[in-house]
Amino acid sequence: MTAGKGLYQALSDYAASDFYPCHMPGHKRNPAGGEMADYYRIDITEIDGFDNLHQAEGILKEAQLRANRLYGADETFYMVNGSSGGVLAAIMAAVEPFDEILIARNCHKSVYHAAILHGLIVRYYYPKIMTEYDIFDGASAAEIGSLLDTYPEVKAVVITSPTYEGVVSDIPGIAAAVHERGKILIVDEAHGAHLGLAPHLPQGAIEGGADLVIHSLHKTLPSMTQTALLHVKGSRIDREKVRGYLSMLQSSSPSYVLMASMDACMGFLEERGQERFDAMRKHYDIFCEKTASFKHIRIGKMSKELRERYELRDWDFGKIVISVKGTSMTGKELGDILRKTYHLEMEMAAESYVLAIMTLMDEGAGWQRLADALGEIDGRIEESADDGSLEAGKRALYSSGPLKGRMTPARAFHSERETVPMQKAVGRTASGFINLYPPGSPIVAPGEVLNEAMVERIEECRRMGLHMQGVSEKGEIVVVAL
Amino acid sequence: MTAGKGLYQALSDYAASDFYPCHMPGHKRNPAGGEMADYYRIDITEIDGFDNLHQAEGILKEAQLRANRLYGADETFYMVNGSSGGVLAAIMAAVEPFDEILIARNCHKSVYHAAILHGLIVRYYYPKIMTEYDIFDGASAAEIGSLLDTYPEVKAVVITSPTYEGVVSDIPGIAAAVHERGKILIVDEAHGAHLGLAPHLPQGAIEGGADLVIHSLHKTLPSMTQTALLHVKGSRIDREKVRGYLSMLQSSSPSYVLMASMDACMGFLEERGQERFDAMRKHYDIFCEKTASFKHIRIGKMSKELRERYELRDWDFGKIVISVKGTSMTGKELGDILRKTYHLEMEMAAESYVLAIMTLMDEGAGWQRLADALGEIDGRIEESADDGSLEAGKRALYSSGPLKGRMTPARAFHSERETVPMQKAVGRTASGFINLYPPGSPIVAPGEVLNEAMVERIEECRRMGLHMQGVSEKGEIVVVAL
Repeated sequence: MTAGKGLYQALSDYAASDFYPCHMPGHKRNPAGGEMADYYRIDITEIDGFDNLHQAEGILKEAQLRANRLYGADETFYMVNGSSGGVLAAIMAAVEPFDEILIARNCHKSVYHAAILHGLIVRYYYPKIMTEYDIFDGASAAEIGSLLDTYPEVKAVVITSPTYEGVVSDIPGIAAAVHERGKILIVDEAHGAHLGLAPHLPQGAIEGGADLVIHSLHKTLPSMTQTALLHVKGSRIDREKVRGYLSMLQSSSPSYVLMASMDACMGFLEERGQERFDAMRKHYDIFCEKTASFKHIRIGKMSKELRERYELRDWDFGKIVISVKGTSMTGKELGDILRKTYHLEMEMAAESYVLAIMTLMDEGAGWQRLADALGEIDGRIEESADDGSLEAGKRALYSSGPLKGRMTPARAFHSERETVPMQKAVGRTASGFINLYPPGSPIVAPGEVLNEAMVERIEECRRMGLHMQGVSEKGEIVVVAL
Repeated sequence: MTAGKGLYQALSDYAASDFYPCHMPGHKRNPAGGEMADYYRIDITEIDGFDNLHQAEGILKEAQLRANRLYGADETFYMVNGSSGGVLAAIMAAVEPFDEILIARNCHKSVYHAAILHGLIVRYYYPKIMTEYDIFDGASAAEIGSLLDTYPEVKAVVITSPTYEGVVSDIPGIAAAVHERGKILIVDEAHGAHLGLAPHLPQGAIEGGADLVIHSLHKTLPSMTQTALLHVKGSRIDREKVRGYLSMLQSSSPSYVLMASMDACMGFLEERGQERFDAMRKHYDIFCEKTASFKHIRIGKMSKELRERYELRDWDFGKIVISVKGTSMTGKELGDILRKTYHLEMEMAAESYVLAIMTLMDEGAGWQRLADALGEIDGRIEESADDGSLEAGKRALYSSGPLKGRMTPARAFHSERETVPMQKAVGRTASGFINLYPPGSPIVAPGEVLNEAMVERIEECRRMGLHMQGVSEKGEIVVVAL
C-alpha cells in the first residue's frame, strides 16, 4: 500500500488523509497539542500499513533494505536507541554471558556497559597516543593478534574506528588477525557512517571485513539524533540473537519520526550524496589552502610521516583537529574564543586542540567562517612559554599502561560501594570509571586496582585543573567496599 | 542562561541565533537536508548551555524537576527509549542478577526481557479474566500477598496497572501487601501517565504507594512516541543504581526533539491540563449517552457488579472497550468496518472487542464520529448464531494456569535451540514466547515445559484461525535443544 514512496512520504500522505486516530500516540495529531504540535503530524504507532520494527515485513523492512543496499552488509537493522543500544546488542549477541572479550581502551562507554550487563571478563588493548596531536592512534593488527595469542579464551574484539578525532584503523588487517584466530570483530563505526560513500572518503568497516558494524546516522549524516544502524556481515554472527537483543534493548514503541528521518537520510544519500560529498571535499581543500599558512594553529591531517610512525590507515577529513599544541593558547581557550567572539560552536575542546565536525551538509560559508576565524586568532597567538607539563601529565595518564584487574566490571558494579579520599585509594578496587573529559575514555575501569603511580598522576592532573570524571570536587572516589 | 523558558523555546531561540554548528548532528540544521529538514531545526547535541541528560545539572535537570512536581514522586527521570527501557532499568535496579521476582502474567514483554537480561528466577501471578469483556482483571492484593508467602525469596513484584484495556488495580492494597513483607513494588503504569492529573481520573500508582512507576508519555498524553518517565518514591530503591542502568540502557546521544516534546507536554498539562481533562470527561459522558441505547455493542465501563465480582478498583475512561461479544460480529470485523467504511483507526482489534484510546487531545468531533459510526453498525448487527467456542477456547488458554518451569527465562534464551512440530513438543522446554496477538501476554514463557493440555489448546486455537505468535505457519515451535 505504501511501497516505493519512502516512509516520510507515506506518513505525510496518511496524515493528510481523513483517517481519525482512536489509538496512540495521545497527541492525536491535534494542532492544539502545544508548542511542538507541528512535530506530531507524522508521529504514529504500528497501525495497519505501517509495519512493526520488531517484526518488520512491510514498509520498515523496505526501509531497512534500502539502508542495506547503500552499505552492502548482509543485513542491516534500524536502531532508535542510538549507537549505544547497537553496541550493547552487538556485543551481547556476539558473545555469551561471562565470556572473555578484548576491548580497545579508547572505546565508548557503551562497550564497557555491555561488559557489565553481560558479566564479561575484559582484556584491554591500549592504542598509542599520537603525540603530535595528543589523540589516539588507530588500532594495531599486530598487537591485537598478539593479545589474542596471550588470551586465547577471548571470543570477540571491539575497536572504535574512526576514533572521535577521525583516525581510521586498518580494518582489513585487523579483521584478518582476528578471523584467522577464529574470533569475531565488532567495529564501533559510530563516527563513520559516511565512510565508503564517495571515492575520496576512507573505506568503511563493512567493506573492511568486520562482522558487526555500528553506525550513528546523526553524527556525520543528515538524520535525527539518536538514529543508528547495525550491520551484520558473514556467518559468524547468530542473527536471531541480534534480533533478540535489539528487541530487548529498544523501545517496543519506536518513534516513526526517528525512523522516517533515517529513511529520508538514505533517500538523500542516494539522490544527492555524491554531489554533496564532492562539494564537501572542495570546501575542505579550500579550507586547507587557507589554513596552510598559519603560524601557530595546525590542522591535523594524514601525512607520510604519520603513516610511518603510527597505525593510522586514514584520517577522515570531516573531523578537523585544530591544534594549538606548543602555543600560548589552550584548546579550551580556543574553543571559548570561537564560541564567544565568532559564534562558532565546536564539537569538543580538549587541552591542546579543538575538534570541529564538518559534514556534507556544511556549505562553503560555514567552512569559510571557520577558516576566517582561525586566521584571525592565529595572528594573535604567541609562541608558548609553557613547558608542556600539562600535556605531558595527561599523556602519562593514558600511557601509564594496564592496571591490575581484581574483578570483572560487572562484579565491581554489583558490589557494595564506599567513598574514600584519593590518598587512601591505593590498593582499592575502583567501583566506577575515572576519566578525563574529554575524551572520556576510562583511565580507570570498574574492577581495576588503583596503584600508587596512578593515584599520584590523578592527583597531579587535578592540581593542574583538569576535569576528572569519577573524582569528586573534594578528591574522593568510589571503591568496592572491603 | 536558558532558565525558565522551557526546553523547546530555548532550542528555538538557539536555532534562530547566528551560532554555527561545527558539531553533531550531521544535518547542521541545513534547510537543504532533505524532506525532513524542518524537523532538524531544534535537534542539537550536548553543547554549552544545553546540559547532558546522563549528568543533568542545568536545563534538563529543570525539565525533569518540572515533571517531578506534576507527579509528586521523590525523583523523576526522563527516558528516550520508551517505557520498555524504563521497565528494564527499574527491575534491574530493584533486584540483583539471579534474584527471584514475582511477575503478573499479563505484563509487557519488557518485564520478561528484564528477567532474561538479569538472569532472574521468575514466579508468575495469573490475573483473572473478566469474562464479560474477555480482558484481564486487576491484580489482587490478597493473591499477591499469598504468593509472596509461598515464595519468600522474591525480592520485587511487577504488575501492570492500568492494563492495556484500562483496568486499574488496587495499588494501595497491593503496596501494603508487598511492603509489609519487605518487598519492592514496581508498577508498569505505561498506559496511565494521565492518572491522578484531574479529580475525575483514577488515582495513580505513585500516590498509591508504588516504589518505582513507569509512565509512557506518548500513550495517553500529547508527547512524541518513545518518550517516557521513570519515577522513584520512598527509600527502598538505590537511586544510584537506577541512574547507572538508565545510563547503560539509553543512548548517550538522547534526542533533544524527544526531550523537548516531554517538556512541552509538561507545560501543556500545567497550563491546559485541567480544562482539557474536564472537556474530555464531558465528551465521554455524551459518548456514553449516545451508546447506552445500543442493542448489541456494549461499552466497557466501571459498575457495581464488576466491582463485586472482580479485583478492579477503577476503569480508565480513556480506554474504550467496544464489545461485540455474543453477537454475530467479531472484534476483527468491527475493526475492519470502522477502518474501511468510517476511516476510524482503532488501537487494537481482538476477537470479541475493539479498543479505542481516547485522550485529552480528542475534540468532540472525534468522539462523535466514533459514536455515530458505532450507532450505524449496531443497527446492522444480528444476534449471534455462534456458540462462543472460539472465545471459550481463547479464555481456556489464559486460564489454563501455571505451566511447570524447567529453567529460568534467561537460561532458555541462552540455550541451544531446535525447531519441532507442535505435536512433538509435549515435555519440551519453550525457548521463546508463545502468545495470542493481541493481547500479546505470553501463554508460554521461555523455560516453561509444554504439557499435553497446552499443546492441545494451542492446536485448537490455530484450527480456529487465531494468530499465535511463536508458532510458525507450519505449526512448529522453537524449543531448547536436548
